[in-house]
Amino acid sequence: MTGDGGRFVLSQQYGKAENRLVRVDRDTPRHVIHDLNVTTTLRGDFAAAYTEGDQSQVLPTDTQKNTVFAFAKTHGVDQIEDFGLALAEHFVDDVAPVTGARVAIEEYAWDRIDVDGSGHDHSFVRSGQSVRTTAVTVEGGGDEPQTWVVSGVKDLVVLKSTGSEFAGFLSDEFTTLAETHDRVMATSLAVRWRYAGSSGIDWQASYDAIRQNLLEQYAVVHSLALQQTLFAMGQTVLEQHPEVVEIRLSAPNIHHFVYDLARFGLENDGEVLHADDRPYGLIQAALSRPDARDAGAAWEARWSS
Amino acid sequence: MTGDGGRFVLSQQYGKAENRLVRVDRDTPRHVIHDLNVTTTLRGDFAAAYTEGDQSQVLPTDTQKNTVFAFAKTHGVDQIEDFGLALAEHFVDDVAPVTGARVAIEEYAWDRIDVDGSGHDHSFVRSGQSVRTTAVTVEGGGDEPQTWVVSGVKDLVVLKSTGSEFAGFLSDEFTTLAETHDRVMATSLAVRWRYAGSSGIDWQASYDAIRQNLLEQYAVVHSLALQQTLFAMGQTVLEQHPEVVEIRLSAPNIHHFVYDLARFGLENDGEVLHADDRPYGLIQAALSRPDARDAGAAWEARWSS
Amino acid sequence: MTGDGGRFVLSQQYGKAENRLVRVDRDTPRHVIHDLNVTTTLRGDFAAAYTEGDQSQVLPTDTQKNTVFAFAKTHGVDQIEDFGLALAEHFVDDVAPVTGARVAIEEYAWDRIDVDGSGHDHSFVRSGQSVRTTAVTVEGGGDEPQTWVVSGVKDLVVLKSTGSEFAGFLSDEFTTLAETHDRVMATSLAVRWRYAGSSGIDWQASYDAIRQNLLEQYAVVHSLALQQTLFAMGQTVLEQHPEVVEIRLSAPNIHHFVYDLARFGLENDGEVLHADDRPYGLIQAALSRPDARDAGAAWEARWSS
Amino acid sequence: MTGDGGRFVLSQQYGKAENRLVRVDRDTPRHVIHDLNVTTTLRGDFAAAYTEGDQSQVLPTDTQKNTVFAFAKTHGVDQIEDFGLALAEHFVDDVAPVTGARVAIEEYAWDRIDVDGSGHDHSFVRSGQSVRTTAVTVEGGGDEPQTWVVSGVKDLVVLKSTGSEFAGFLSDEFTTLAETHDRVMATSLAVRWRYAGSSGIDWQASYDAIRQNLLEQYAVVHSLALQQTLFAMGQTVLEQHPEVVEIRLSAPNIHHFVYDLARFGLENDGEVLHADDRPYGLIQAALSRPDARDAGAAWEARWSS
Repeated sequence: MTGDGGRFVLSQQYGKAENRLVRVDRDTPRHVIHDLNVTTTLRGDFAAAYTEGDQSQVLPTDTQKNTVFAFAKTHGVDQIEDFGLALAEHFVDDVAPVTGARVAIEEYAWDRIDVDGSGHDHSFVRSGQSVRTTAVTVEGGGDEPQTWVVSGVKDLVVLKSTGSEFAGFLSDEFTTLAETHDRVMATSLAVRWRYAGSSGIDWQASYDAIRQNLLEQYAVVHSLALQQTLFAMGQTVLEQHPEVVEIRLSAPNIHHFVYDLARFGLENDGEVLHADDRPYGLIQAALSRPDARDAGAAWEARWSS
Repeated sequence: MTGDGGRFVLSQQYGKAENRLVRVDRDTPRHVIHDLNVTTTLRGDFAAAYTEGDQSQVLPTDTQKNTVFAFAKTHGVDQIEDFGLALAEHFVDDVAPVTGARVAIEEYAWDRIDVDGSGHDHSFVRSGQSVRTTAVTVEGGGDEPQTWVVSGVKDLVVLKSTGSEFAGFLSDEFTTLAETHDRVMATSLAVRWRYAGSSGIDWQASYDAIRQNLLEQYAVVHSLALQQTLFAMGQTVLEQHPEVVEIRLSAPNIHHFVYDLARFGLENDGEVLHADDRPYGLIQAALSRPDARDAGAAWEARWSS
Repeated sequence: MTGDGGRFVLSQQYGKAENRLVRVDRDTPRHVIHDLNVTTTLRGDFAAAYTEGDQSQVLPTDTQKNTVFAFAKTHGVDQIEDFGLALAEHFVDDVAPVTGARVAIEEYAWDRIDVDGSGHDHSFVRSGQSVRTTAVTVEGGGDEPQTWVVSGVKDLVVLKSTGSEFAGFLSDEFTTLAETHDRVMATSLAVRWRYAGSSGIDWQASYDAIRQNLLEQYAVVHSLALQQTLFAMGQTVLEQHPEVVEIRLSAPNIHHFVYDLARFGLENDGEVLHADDRPYGLIQAALSRPDARDAGAAWEARWSS
Repeated sequence: MTGDGGRFVLSQQYGKAENRLVRVDRDTPRHVIHDLNVTTTLRGDFAAAYTEGDQSQVLPTDTQKNTVFAFAKTHGVDQIEDFGLALAEHFVDDVAPVTGARVAIEEYAWDRIDVDGSGHDHSFVRSGQSVRTTAVTVEGGGDEPQTWVVSGVKDLVVLKSTGSEFAGFLSDEFTTLAETHDRVMATSLAVRWRYAGSSGIDWQASYDAIRQNLLEQYAVVHSLALQQTLFAMGQTVLEQHPEVVEIRLSAPNIHHFVYDLARFGLENDGEVLHADDRPYGLIQAALSRPDARDAGAAWEARWSS
């Protein structure tokens, strides 16, 4: 990714972002759909394109788009991790100047429309409850390629109406917050986890179980702070999933303020709240196994947004 | 709403938009939450505020906000239609200069988090599948107030992977579209329906049934065009719901183009599609009973967006 | 727009929304660009498409898109009002089943990039200061077509850091707001005005002057309320522009709250403010000439959003 | 940032995101406004909050918000870099458990409203042309704090209607793109640059000059690819700004497709284009001086979005 920038050190990458691919499996009357947003990024020796405008080593982003859609036909789209691996390996193995590839995918979930108590064969309603993600990185190619798979879930919005406290915190001259032992806590979870390997894993089962871990821990942990809840989530996932070596959680604290009704002679025992947009707390945690393989470029994405 | 603008005719209205209210019913350990976005609009003789800057007849939008949150305590929030009616009637009945009020509400749905097979008492995950809406309008006050309730559903995203055609259409010198007898059809439904009255209606049952009507018709109608599907939806709702006198449906045709894979020697029998953002078709229909009471200001909202 | 819905009254319309057209005038080395978002809507006797799935009277939205782009070549794009008129008249005059057409256009402004003190011939930077709009409606066709042009500006965000008051307002049991004689007032203006006619008007000059009227009135009026400022804007436009018969203004009151610094022993004389996202006041006004021609469908757009 | 996670390695950070601060300098009748979005992030020994729910070392995010607004009074807001430095140094120096702080700021530009040819004293219109950014990181505190300042510009949307080519590129079995020697090239620039130091720099002058460098290079470089344009931009900035040691550029290629009008017997010599939303190319480059000080945590932000 670094190359000849004359007197300067040049790093670079490029790709096609947000290919909106829908794959319909229609071999039988009971169709299956996969609704994806695919972003490809290539790394390699493209320095001449930057320094000289020489495109001879540059596979156009238009070609990358074509490849995504062609692979949806030839490889099918079942698990987004497998689809990402197929694409990333292709770019590294088959396109000479490419030494690294990253394929990031979002998958939007759909439910079958219920008709007379059973799911319809070919009619679907989009489930907006969360988005499944993966980012597959392949580097090196040849005999010793390195591969990382980081999967996740985002836009998973949760709220608990009690069972959350915030007290005993550090105080300085700018502290005015009152302690509370019973509050609403809400967040929109963005969680990603890095797998130890890239094969022999039941991606769907792992995803389903981890997502349920996150929801359950959110529900059952009596929370002294959002930090504690995140830690419990991460710990549970690592304990129950040997296939995962690292997990990163990011959680905006979506503030719900108890509305001051005393001004109108009314009690408000945490029943009437104002959900505020901004600002919000942003709490983050990462847990990893001490012996985890180096993460390399697994977490890297755009570097300048 | 019209008043003295000197040489010009003045119309006006004002209110507080997007009050983000969360109501927690917590009388028992099994909490219930209602998550609303409430917009109030007042109409009346406020002309002096416009022409003279005289606020003596103007109830501040800040007061309207306070009222929304106070009513959430005193009236509770069960059905958004009832909550809107209470607010709108209050403004018209209790605030002298107000001759008309409109309260528009969006409700975001939440599911209980599943823990060991049953829904948790106070932990919830947001269901993003659609948004429930209402707009309540009260005009006149006094002995003969007029009231309209227009409820709806929006952001209901549906797709059928077959059972949709588009052929036999009108053609002119700019027509290049090929006919098709098997395509993907997708849309994000925004539907609103006007009730005959404003009392004695089981709002929840009506909403649930209409939403299911829409989904079912989408699924079971073999569609010769999105227009036909919308009509079937509207007709079904009016046939099955005597409490509804008018329904309006708005449906963007979210185009899914069959990706040209023949260039790579691959067949594509409707399996690989590109979901395009813009432009999109926009198909609309309104059906009403011939004897429906006049709609008055029922559908009116902001007039200048 | 109404038709045969069997036992029900059917209204309908359809079109192609958000065609993102960029027109480059490149006859000389000094290029000119027009960057548009065009939405077409057709009205007419399309009932059979709804009731029977019969498309024989339906001009596909794909054809409407083609027409927009073809007209950009044959008619050019100079003033969006003229471009909209050409399109709307074409649909009504040349497509038999079409009895009415509405063409709504947004135009995004670009400035030339400054190089060595002068604007570059073919390099531009987008000016995000506001968006110019128009909506052209043609109905009837034949010997007596009716035409309305409603133009406007939106996303014009303005703020004054003093010269704004809010006091002397109506009070009830839910009023807690303090009066103020010096506050920050900010809004994002959305203004539309209806022209008396559709020809013989210098659209560019009218737009430029009205936009400047709005900004100037915002600046120079000592405001006792946002209502008063809107009225002054509307009045000025109608007084100075005989070509305009009606104007509608919509203004969210983007609240800027004085942050409470007294808790830290600091004065805050309106110097440090928190800009809040939601809720916001929404103030609206419409002024028209008493003798204005009937507005007909001039203001109508989507009816179910 | 790493701490005791029991059997697992724990990293963490937290803060208050998106404080929407407006600072009005109103000592004279000619007001000056600064409109900011401020995000604070603290790093340090907060592990007990995660593992035990012990908040005794946690400065609440609410306190961080208060600090931002209080500092706007006590320190003023002139250059966002200086404001960010003051905040970050305060957190590291004055709050015992904090060992590192990052303050990221966006600034929205406003122009004075023109009245009779001169800018008004206290009335402003928001200039949407671009957003100025900075991210200040302080680590270590005590005698040897380390400080990094990374400033930037984003949402700078540019287009050139000629002077851009794309040809001679690598081809494989999925390549279908035609070569072109005259195309529209458009992008929305997000650029960030790292300063060598954190004091003695005229931030405003540096920002203004770099922004102009970017625009000028975009205009004057005859571009064989967007890659080449980015490199020219980066090289120019490093050559002309000894105070900058590294620059990162991220540029979506906003595709403008020549619309096929031949189907209607019309020529289209690059005059009529369709601006497509998705997918888009995403081209990125980073240039740094070979002897640049290590970047440390300068570029780090949220790690899990």
